[in-house]
Amino acid sequence: MNHEFYMNLAIDEAWRYQLLTYPNPAVGCVILDKNGKILSIEAHKEAGKAHAELKAVSKALKVLNPNLDLPQNANDLHEFICQNHQGLLKGASAYVSLEPCNHQGKTPPCAKLFSTLGFSEVFIATKDEHKLASGGVEFLKDQGIKVHMGICEQRAKELLKPFLKWQKSSFKFFKLALSLNGSAYGKIVSSKASRTYAHALRSKLDLLVVGGETIRHDRPILDARLAQAKAPNLCILSHQNLESFDPNIPLFSVPEREIFTSIPSKAKFIMYEGGENFLKAFKDELDMLLIFSNSNLNTLENVKLDLKLKPLYKGFLENDTYGFYEIIKS
Amino acid sequence: MNHEFYMNLAIDEAWRYQLLTYPNPAVGCVILDKNGKILSIEAHKEAGKAHAELKAVSKALKVLNPNLDLPQNANDLHEFICQNHQGLLKGASAYVSLEPCNHQGKTPPCAKLFSTLGFSEVFIATKDEHKLASGGVEFLKDQGIKVHMGICEQRAKELLKPFLKWQKSSFKFFKLALSLNGSAYGKIVSSKASRTYAHALRSKLDLLVVGGETIRHDRPILDARLAQAKAPNLCILSHQNLESFDPNIPLFSVPEREIFTSIPSKAKFIMYEGGENFLKAFKDELDMLLIFSNSNLNTLENVKLDLKLKPLYKGFLENDTYGFYEIIKS
Ligand SMILES: [Zn+2]
Ligand SMILES: [Zn+2]
Repeated sequence: MNHEFYMNLAIDEAWRYQLLTYPNPAVGCVILDKNGKILSIEAHKEAGKAHAELKAVSKALKVLNPNLDLPQNANDLHEFICQNHQGLLKGASAYVSLEPCNHQGKTPPCAKLFSTLGFSEVFIATKDEHKLASGGVEFLKDQGIKVHMGICEQRAKELLKPFLKWQKSSFKFFKLALSLNGSAYGKIVSSKASRTYAHALRSKLDLLVVGGETIRHDRPILDARLAQAKAPNLCILSHQNLESFDPNIPLFSVPEREIFTSIPSKAKFIMYEGGENFLKAFKDELDMLLIFSNSNLNTLENVKLDLKLKPLYKGFLENDTYGFYEIIKS
Repeated sequence: MNHEFYMNLAIDEAWRYQLLTYPNPAVGCVILDKNGKILSIEAHKEAGKAHAELKAVSKALKVLNPNLDLPQNANDLHEFICQNHQGLLKGASAYVSLEPCNHQGKTPPCAKLFSTLGFSEVFIATKDEHKLASGGVEFLKDQGIKVHMGICEQRAKELLKPFLKWQKSSFKFFKLALSLNGSAYGKIVSSKASRTYAHALRSKLDLLVVGGETIRHDRPILDARLAQAKAPNLCILSHQNLESFDPNIPLFSVPEREIFTSIPSKAKFIMYEGGENFLKAFKDELDMLLIFSNSNLNTLENVKLDLKLKPLYKGFLENDTYGFYEIIKS
């Protein structure tokens, strides 16, 4: 198989954790042994946890030596591996969607990990333009590792778009859940896996933006219970005062929740949730749409607005399809 | 990676040619070298052409020896490989979605191919219940090859469903092309890749079934020009006589086309094309739906009918998503 095949595996894996890594970028990594056998396909999953490279390296070592008892904590894991790798990954190669980091951040640098373990080749989809973390390519080359740049670069850049937006200013996306025939109404339309992913996203947000109409009509709690995680702070956009809402609507009883009536400037990672009207009102402010489509046809009215979309990634969550889309401005 | 990973690659590849192999089953095959490196991921693409196993073996040999000048014709290819394999695939393993054939059909048996080339392991998702072709497992075992059955068996059985239906009686499916918000109307809604696949399907059909309403309204030609292939015979279901249609509607001018007004019993592979009303009228006769969804929202009415669907496979064709669905009878 060609290099694109392996890099696509890395990028696809990274997309599965897209946005969940906030404020870090989504990154994927595939490791092949010296004979070209795939040992691991991993991704960075959450800020503070192992980078994709460390995750993939530890999985690969575990495949080669199932008796290895690896520490959980990312720093301990990095150190343990550097001391106990037994040369198992000598001559291995890695495909990484982003240039490996070269600085001591929350975790030790991944570029050094590859050289310590004796990797012979590293394939990188795109450079890290982030000043602090960059320099991985030069470091790897200095250590005598063959480095190949630009495999699937376009896809890797698409993967980084949310990260680049929230680094620079803010990233705003709209979550829409549809039936296969385009209705946004009715009872729960998404699979358990889709709803769990959506709850995990909520728990990472700086802010969840909803409309007064939805709140009055659905009386939601808007928490992250399916991911067993922290409920997001809210911004309620409404023509009416907060005081006019029924205080028994569950979302008002979530502990430690801040509720705003306009978007505070410190919020950098923002999700909008709603239906047709809310999307119509805010479509020009959005960086992306996240659309879930289930597998049923029904007799309900569809969402109607003219939007040409460019899919950046599509995947599956049980019977649902979901996609990240950019709006094509005409 | 586990066995399921490789078998899923084989099954996914087979789905890309689903229905195009009529009257043969869709089959996929992945080959790893003796060290576990992926050499090829292939599928059976068309009746009369190489089986998936032969296709994958020839691709794998070409990877290992790019100078090999392989013949096109499947029989010649099989013979050439048996004589010129140079032991390159000794110790290799194969993942096949269906038990390799064991009889001389249009092409020589694939089970024999694996043993001649010195494969050491063959992973098979599901048995071939077809009396003539079966026996591959026993043959492989007799040759001292390790055989593992039942990897991803559920998915492999789903892959075979159309084949089992047209073998037994007939296979009827409905093609529907939707926007992301569920409208079936308006101008071309599908990507070039989707339309090319749909045209390739048309060229393999015994019969394309359409309604009088569509013909009057769209004045289509219903040919297979995007696949540069043979236009299908038609069945026009209408309350009115064929004579009442405008004879200048392009579909009537396709050379060598037979046009029926009811489904002839000899037709075993049948596609319905139409919109909401046509689907409503015939949904109880269908074995599957093939639904294309593009990536745009518009302001048109959606298709409205209550159908709970179970996706068997979903894939992408450029910016479109498409899926094969079974109807869940409630
Ligand atoms: Zn790193
Ligand atoms: Zn065969």
